[in-house]
Amino acid sequence: MTKELAPAITLVRPQLGMNIGMVARAMANFTLEDLRLVAPRDGWPNSDAGPAAAGADHVLDQAKLVDDVAEGLAGCQLTFATSVRPRHIHKPVVTPKEAVAKMREAEAQGLKSGILFGPERSGLTADDLAAVDMIITCPVNPNFGSLNLAQAVLLIAYEWFQSSSLPQTALPDHIRAPHEEVAGLIGHLVRDLDDAGYFHVPERTPATIRSLSHLISRAEFSSDEIRMLHGIIRALAEGRRR
Amino acid sequence: MTKELAPAITLVRPQLGMNIGMVARAMANFTLEDLRLVAPRDGWPNSDAGPAAAGADHVLDQAKLVDDVAEGLAGCQLTFATSVRPRHIHKPVVTPKEAVAKMREAEAQGLKSGILFGPERSGLTADDLAAVDMIITCPVNPNFGSLNLAQAVLLIAYEWFQSSSLPQTALPDHIRAPHEEVAGLIGHLVRDLDDAGYFHVPERTPATIRSLSHLISRAEFSSDEIRMLHGIIRALAEGRRR
Repeated sequence: MTKELAPAITLVRPQLGMNIGMVARAMANFTLEDLRLVAPRDGWPNSDAGPAAAGADHVLDQAKLVDDVAEGLAGCQLTFATSVRPRHIHKPVVTPKEAVAKMREAEAQGLKSGILFGPERSGLTADDLAAVDMIITCPVNPNFGSLNLAQAVLLIAYEWFQSSSLPQTALPDHIRAPHEEVAGLIGHLVRDLDDAGYFHVPERTPATIRSLSHLISRAEFSSDEIRMLHGIIRALAEGRRR
Repeated sequence: MTKELAPAITLVRPQLGMNIGMVARAMANFTLEDLRLVAPRDGWPNSDAGPAAAGADHVLDQAKLVDDVAEGLAGCQLTFATSVRPRHIHKPVVTPKEAVAKMREAEAQGLKSGILFGPERSGLTADDLAAVDMIITCPVNPNFGSLNLAQAVLLIAYEWFQSSSLPQTALPDHIRAPHEEVAGLIGHLVRDLDDAGYFHVPERTPATIRSLSHLISRAEFSSDEIRMLHGIIRALAEGRRR
């Protein structure tokens, strides 16, 4: 188990610096260090984060500031998003414990995981959720379900730390491409479909792009397969233009 | 399982009202409601608690203000205290998970449990610890072990809630399309790629088609996804009829 393969914690559009600090503390409690911040509302660095980190400065100092969710999951082959009772989303929904079991399996195969956490009030959008493999939903009181951001991170980090001695599983021959390659393929396809006039009902375009993203991320393509699919899209699109 | 037998959370000399509010929230997340405050530094009620409780007002409203630890554990047959790496204490030391298993056993016998949590900076004293049956210590990063008060409560409450008969998490059923639909998609793609001049090295064509077929069948597409993929291939190859 190497440090590099420990899961990345990606906060999407976090609002309060204090919460970012508390997340860093919760991560450090359970040895996680790879913190990524997607477009934090008040910029970065944020002077409210340090005091709340209560000594977890090494996590804040290493935090990566990134522009979008795709960058926030860069280098991660297995991706999760946390969401409260997701509806109408055809992705596997797992508990923190189940998610961590999958992260540990991935780690045993040399793969890295990344987990998205949404903004304090609103949570992740449907577009954010479309980008990932699985949804993590924590079983909570159905009448009082809202976990604070740092506490959601804490529960995952706790389960991850608890699960540290797991049996190794065999290396599979199919290795998933990292997130950025999957995102690149989706981007390529969407551009070429747009050129071809595929999105001819503008109101439906966002939902169609989400379905596309979901379809492609669910298929768990390898890097070789993604290369082949780029070639296929190029051949079909350029063949048409000739 | 009755509500009365759910464990009591007893905060001993808590300092910040905000932390008491966050404890109430963490309890409510996992259906705990019996909060007891032993000599809170700033008295009780405390106006900083409400906002931090984020809606868990029912827990704060019912909180019992008491004078000492003994009263804080009144009515509890099985008692615990949380402590970081307790030394020189001849009591059983258990993890949160082990503690919760004991609480559930007690509950099954009609017995109630109570758990002491110490003040933010200093933790519980040796005298406080002397009063209980067992010590709970959470396995944490040995180099960064200090859990915030509400987070310590959260982990116990989480384990407690987890240990009830858990609802099954719903795995949305992803149903693979029948073989003929997969074959139809491969056929469509191969024909359009051929038209587009993709198979320009004839000796390699059979191997390329095999890779394509493998890629598509491995992805385990559903019938809906296959319909979408037909549309995508058509759009890329023909453009929209205009």
